[in-house]
Amino acid sequence: MNIKPLGDRVVIKVLDKEEKTKGGIVLPDTAKEKPQKGEVIAVGTGEVIDGKKVPLEVKVGDKVIFSKYAGTEVKIDDQEYLILRQSDILAILE
Amino acid sequence: MNIKPLGDRVVIKVLDKEEKTKGGIVLPDTAKEKPQKGEVIAVGTGEVIDGKKVPLEVKVGDKVIFSKYAGTEVKIDDQEYLILRQSDILAILE
Amino acid sequence: MNIKPLGDRVVIKVLDKEEKTKGGIVLPDTAKEKPQKGEVIAVGTGEVIDGKKVPLEVKVGDKVIFSKYAGTEVKIDDQEYLILRQSDILAILE
Amino acid sequence: MNIKPLGDRVVIKVLDKEEKTKGGIVLPDTAKEKPQKGEVIAVGTGEVIDGKKVPLEVKVGDKVIFSKYAGTEVKIDDQEYLILRQSDILAILE
Amino acid sequence: MNIKPLGDRVVIKVLDKEEKTKGGIVLPDTAKEKPQKGEVIAVGTGEVIDGKKVPLEVKVGDKVIFSKYAGTEVKIDDQEYLILRQSDILAILE
Amino acid sequence: MNIKPLGDRVVIKVLDKEEKTKGGIVLPDTAKEKPQKGEVIAVGTGEVIDGKKVPLEVKVGDKVIFSKYAGTEVKIDDQEYLILRQSDILAILE
Amino acid sequence: MNIKPLGDRVVIKVLDKEEKTKGGIVLPDTAKEKPQKGEVIAVGTGEVIDGKKVPLEVKVGDKVIFSKYAGTEVKIDDQEYLILRQSDILAILE
Repeated sequence: MNIKPLGDRVVIKVLDKEEKTKGGIVLPDTAKEKPQKGEVIAVGTGEVIDGKKVPLEVKVGDKVIFSKYAGTEVKIDDQEYLILRQSDILAILE
Repeated sequence: MNIKPLGDRVVIKVLDKEEKTKGGIVLPDTAKEKPQKGEVIAVGTGEVIDGKKVPLEVKVGDKVIFSKYAGTEVKIDDQEYLILRQSDILAILE
Repeated sequence: MNIKPLGDRVVIKVLDKEEKTKGGIVLPDTAKEKPQKGEVIAVGTGEVIDGKKVPLEVKVGDKVIFSKYAGTEVKIDDQEYLILRQSDILAILE
Repeated sequence: MNIKPLGDRVVIKVLDKEEKTKGGIVLPDTAKEKPQKGEVIAVGTGEVIDGKKVPLEVKVGDKVIFSKYAGTEVKIDDQEYLILRQSDILAILE
Repeated sequence: MNIKPLGDRVVIKVLDKEEKTKGGIVLPDTAKEKPQKGEVIAVGTGEVIDGKKVPLEVKVGDKVIFSKYAGTEVKIDDQEYLILRQSDILAILE
Repeated sequence: MNIKPLGDRVVIKVLDKEEKTKGGIVLPDTAKEKPQKGEVIAVGTGEVIDGKKVPLEVKVGDKVIFSKYAGTEVKIDDQEYLILRQSDILAILE
Repeated sequence: MNIKPLGDRVVIKVLDKEEKTKGGIVLPDTAKEKPQKGEVIAVGTGEVIDGKKVPLEVKVGDKVIFSKYAGTEVKIDDQEYLILRQSDILAILE
């Protein structure tokens, strides 16, 4: 993998993507946001907090759940990834 | 339980969920927000405040009340949980 | 009392609640916000300011006035309380 | 006077209140905000800035001018007061 | 002059006030804000930045230009003044 | 030049001003903001960051490019200038 | 290249620009933002964080991906560039 995210960003390979229903308006059952699963492919050098570089909590290979509307899609070598900030990651699945 | 929330987040099992009335518009009696009860299932490694990691105040097993509209729903092994930030937790019930 | 508010939050028992007029639209005479009185029932462990835990200024038993629209209602043992942040408390009555 | 404002708040007795014209829409001549005069009746313990408690600049007895729309009205012993943050006070009149 | 502005505020005597055209809608030629000239009449004790009191850069007698829509008008001894924050002052004319 | 900008502000003489087309609605080809060129005529004493005065990066005589909608126009001795914050300057041309 | 970006800004030469479809309204397939590729041509002196100058993570020659709607277009010697903040750069491609 030849992508190096900056700062507190991580690159994620989405594991299960929410299906879009055919021809239909989506009626969410609750107002709550639903997260997605993914695998961490690359991590940034860390977050600068009060002048100090704090390494990220997630590492390459971690299975994570993250906010569905977060991040930016990138396509590298015909493969789609997401670049997120670590703060958009909710939890690590173990 | 195999979920590890990040930073200042906690995983909550909701204890009593507000019923949704059939077919009806909900008329709240006051503008005040009503909270929900839950049990803490997993806690993050802490909140970074001014470059220092501050451990969370809540711990696994605590019964807590939290803001009803906070957090993100996750489903793990057919069980539903909520991932909240600790700041969305109002109080611990003892 | 078996409720422990988190951080800079306090639990308040409302002492005089504003009456809601029957069937009527309320016409406020001025744009100014009107406060409410209450008694402090429980206090949090303090507010984290610049990495240090600062204890709260109010203590259990204090009669306080607070912003009317602040806080979250909780019902414990058929008794209603409000959970506020200390910053929503305007003054202590002595 | 038996009221103790919290933090950076002060209690003000309004000295000259803007008259409301009868039956009429008020057409302000400029967009500029017009201030009010008052006397400081009680002051808080100070403002916490970067973890240190900084005492207030105003003291009991000061005649001050403050932003007209600031603060919260309180009525104690049939007397009306305003609770403001010190930052809503523009200047001390000497 | 018997007015003592608080903190980072200064009292300004406006030197040239923008004329309001009779009966007409004002059509600004550009979206840029136009400033006003004034003389500094009194200065506050300084701005608290990171717990330290930093004295103001302007001093009594300085001719300054400031943002036209900034500040609060005050009338003292039948004379009109403006109370501004120092950050609303753009430059000192020498 | 007898103007001393405050803090992190600089005075700019605009070098090429965007022409306004006659009688027409402007249809921007992209949503991207287009910058302007100018020459630095005067610089402020610096920006206060965390209690320390940090001198500005630009100096008198620098040709700079800046965001077109930034700043405040001032007219001194029949000459028009712009007062900007240094953060509105994008780059120095060398 | 004779352009020196200020602070945490970098100058980018866009490598592949999104085509605009002829005569048509663009219907984005997802709500997610799509990034662009570019090459770093010049970098600023660094970002001031808590009073310390932190050098940028990207350097001249880096191939980067960045948010499509970020930055300001500049034209120097008939060549178009983009000036971005480093925080608008998502990752370095290696």
